[in-house]
Amino acid sequence: MPVVGVIGGGQLARMMHPAAINLGIELRVFTESEDSSAHQAAYRVGDYLNYKNLEEFSQGLDALTFDHEHVPTELLRKLEDLGVAVRPSASALIHAQNKLVMREKLAQLGLPMPAWRRASSPEEVNQFLVEHGPKIVVKTPIGGYDGKGVRVISAVGEIEDWLADLDRYGGALLLEQKVDFVSECAQLSARSATGEFKLWPLASTYQKDGVCSEVVAPFGSAALQASAAEIAERISEGLGVVGVLAVEMFITSMGDLVINELAMRPHNSGHFTQDGCVTSQFEQHLRAVLGWPLGDTSMSAEVAVMVNLLGVDQENNLVDYFPAAMQRFPKIKLHSYQKQPRSGRKMGHLNLVGSDAAELLTQARNARDLIYNRGQEV
Amino acid sequence: MPVVGVIGGGQLARMMHPAAINLGIELRVFTESEDSSAHQAAYRVGDYLNYKNLEEFSQGLDALTFDHEHVPTELLRKLEDLGVAVRPSASALIHAQNKLVMREKLAQLGLPMPAWRRASSPEEVNQFLVEHGPKIVVKTPIGGYDGKGVRVISAVGEIEDWLADLDRYGGALLLEQKVDFVSECAQLSARSATGEFKLWPLASTYQKDGVCSEVVAPFGSAALQASAAEIAERISEGLGVVGVLAVEMFITSMGDLVINELAMRPHNSGHFTQDGCVTSQFEQHLRAVLGWPLGDTSMSAEVAVMVNLLGVDQENNLVDYFPAAMQRFPKIKLHSYQKQPRSGRKMGHLNLVGSDAAELLTQARNARDLIYNRGQEV
Repeated sequence: MPVVGVIGGGQLARMMHPAAINLGIELRVFTESEDSSAHQAAYRVGDYLNYKNLEEFSQGLDALTFDHEHVPTELLRKLEDLGVAVRPSASALIHAQNKLVMREKLAQLGLPMPAWRRASSPEEVNQFLVEHGPKIVVKTPIGGYDGKGVRVISAVGEIEDWLADLDRYGGALLLEQKVDFVSECAQLSARSATGEFKLWPLASTYQKDGVCSEVVAPFGSAALQASAAEIAERISEGLGVVGVLAVEMFITSMGDLVINELAMRPHNSGHFTQDGCVTSQFEQHLRAVLGWPLGDTSMSAEVAVMVNLLGVDQENNLVDYFPAAMQRFPKIKLHSYQKQPRSGRKMGHLNLVGSDAAELLTQARNARDLIYNRGQEV
Repeated sequence: MPVVGVIGGGQLARMMHPAAINLGIELRVFTESEDSSAHQAAYRVGDYLNYKNLEEFSQGLDALTFDHEHVPTELLRKLEDLGVAVRPSASALIHAQNKLVMREKLAQLGLPMPAWRRASSPEEVNQFLVEHGPKIVVKTPIGGYDGKGVRVISAVGEIEDWLADLDRYGGALLLEQKVDFVSECAQLSARSATGEFKLWPLASTYQKDGVCSEVVAPFGSAALQASAAEIAERISEGLGVVGVLAVEMFITSMGDLVINELAMRPHNSGHFTQDGCVTSQFEQHLRAVLGWPLGDTSMSAEVAVMVNLLGVDQENNLVDYFPAAMQRFPKIKLHSYQKQPRSGRKMGHLNLVGSDAAELLTQARNARDLIYNRGQEV
């Protein structure tokens, strides 16, 4: 039986589990705590920064992959030297771990990006503010996610704390032009260890307070889809990605695509594939890291929408109100991450497929609000 | 978090696990061996005939349900007396455990069946042979499955061993007219603990050597579908079923439906719902036994086909050749039961959805044969 190890026990590892059960793959998750979201597939609990732990965990795996980007590449390179099939490889994953490395590589590939620069002094920040202000975006190259590690500033004083602690972020910050976008989208793709490459339909994404809130697929004109597809393929091959790659992009008022972020794993923008496509991103990721043939990525319905379920407080676990939402909306597909509730935390999501995007979104939001409101109609 | 216990660790319990992960339900499986098909959800390993085991396992469950029909109703009634939510209840399940009890009850409900009788002597068998021969069907009322416990005979001598050992089968045998059918079908439905009832589309089923081989849905004229739906609803309500009910029926040359077998759990004839319907039978079963609202049962594609993967020998685990089938047929959805290979054993199945049933069946059979033939084209 093929064995895939996953470092990190969050909801992405959790959602690989159903796909693994279907395909007869043994999933072994290395989690940080006993009560992780993926605890049902937990094989080892410990600290992934401890190399000894990683080495022991890697024994007997056909492929080692990730739920997050936080394992230092030095440790992954040591595993690769031992012959462990680290997928994506350390040399690919570094681009998802460090946003400065990513910008440098994508610049080499000539891909469309916001104006950007590396900065490690107040003078460099001020110069960029003069050139691209009045507002610019500043990102810590490592450690950010879901809006953390990102600030929109109009004066260097607003990142004084980051500049004073540069060592923590790899010695420099990433400055980016604040893109005047009309909407955002995400191109999901997968590349197998064999080099086979497949794209899912382009999806529109809507972020609220820096966190993914809603996704609709398919999205965009044929021309936009072709541009997004080309960008994803050039990144996937150029960086040697193995597994799922999500490319988050802005669409400017001129209709141009500008690359915002990359993730080399299943991604929130691809959850619609679970119930809206022939092959989900979770099944595809497992197939890709094992070097298996990739599955068909076409839509199984005309339109799919995904709405995130975020924690509302420390009491409402949301699952208690799934039945109320099921009662009103028999077609919704609910996904719980089985996490302790906390305001703003990603607790689950729901998918809904059909033919009318606006109608589906209205229903999905109403179902979400019913759950947020403890089963009471708003 | 809602907790559902399942007695039996076969593929049906295994396939409830992905649905449980999605919905945030804790699935606890009581298996007979460490390496059962559902071992990833195993909570306790032991003998389900030992009441003490069952009582301990039932602690803390919101509902107790089944992977098979083999738990004696005396034991289930004791659990019910303790307040355990046994679903389906002992008084419903008895109809799926004992084929004589089933025939008696369906006769009371006036539902269409083959001519049948209870027999415990050679004389009774001979009389039935005279009335309904030259060939009749003899079934052991309990313990049969997948063609086991069923014989087509033309002389009483062919069941001499069963008649000599009647105590093992509950004191009598079930004799049935051999129905001259043109095809077979199965009506899958679910009834929630709240009484809510939903039907999936009627499916045609094809048995080979008494074992389910292929299923296609939807199937039949509007009139046939309406008859099948009415039969399923009358059985589900008449017997007080909670959970999934599969009604296997013959279609006579006159176009009439005749009830063959019942199962009160997810069933092989309903595996197409995993990839072909908005709500799978496994998700629905969990919702039903918890008393949650039932999900939409409509097809998510025009047509769905299911082909079983049976063991070919003791060497080929089939999973090793899944990639070969994936390569040729990127749309197939493979399901492994992770069982030790053995000739004829149900090892997995594959689903395929689309719009042309004949074309889908051809592809599904070719994919199956590729796996049987160790990845070599036949």
